[in-house]
Amino acid sequence: MKETIEKNSIKYQELLRKYINTQDEKALYDLELISKAFIKKNILPEELINLHIQAMENIYPQLMDEYKLSMEFLLEATVFYGLALQEVDYLRQEKN
Amino acid sequence: MKETIEKNSIKYQELLRKYINTQDEKALYDLELISKAFIKKNILPEELINLHIQAMENIYPQLMDEYKLSMEFLLEATVFYGLALQEVDYLRQEKN
Repeated sequence: MKETIEKNSIKYQELLRKYINTQDEKALYDLELISKAFIKKNILPEELINLHIQAMENIYPQLMDEYKLSMEFLLEATVFYGLALQEVDYLRQEKN
Repeated sequence: MKETIEKNSIKYQELLRKYINTQDEKALYDLELISKAFIKKNILPEELINLHIQAMENIYPQLMDEYKLSMEFLLEATVFYGLALQEVDYLRQEKN
């Protein structure tokens, strides 16, 4: 799980930078592949948001505190979505 | 579903503003209640991110384009999490 995040973190950051600079739809297509790989490896939405925050801090080292706080807030909001997703695994296993 | 989002959008915005200004942990506790209500009503993670973007645009009307684009990108990344969550409902119904 950690390996998949590490493997994709640089790629995510480069796609994000590319999308911000060029709005190239191809970046969104490549993002879809990362996103699907994350779900397959049970990487929770809050880990995706965390990766996004790290990428933004690398691309824009001078980010305002207000931005960081707003993203912390969003991160908290997604934690319960992660718990709901874990139920999918549980239900799948129960089914098999 | 739309009703739950509308009912909570002003509240979300006020909690976000409060958290950015004061870092009051109480705002995170109240956020937890909104987040859980959203999951109960099958509101997808991308709808939460969208609500967050709207709230940020209301709180900071002068947001940079780079911010907006970065959030569009994050929104795209969460779409597949929404699809995965819909599977929970499917599996739950199948179980009953």
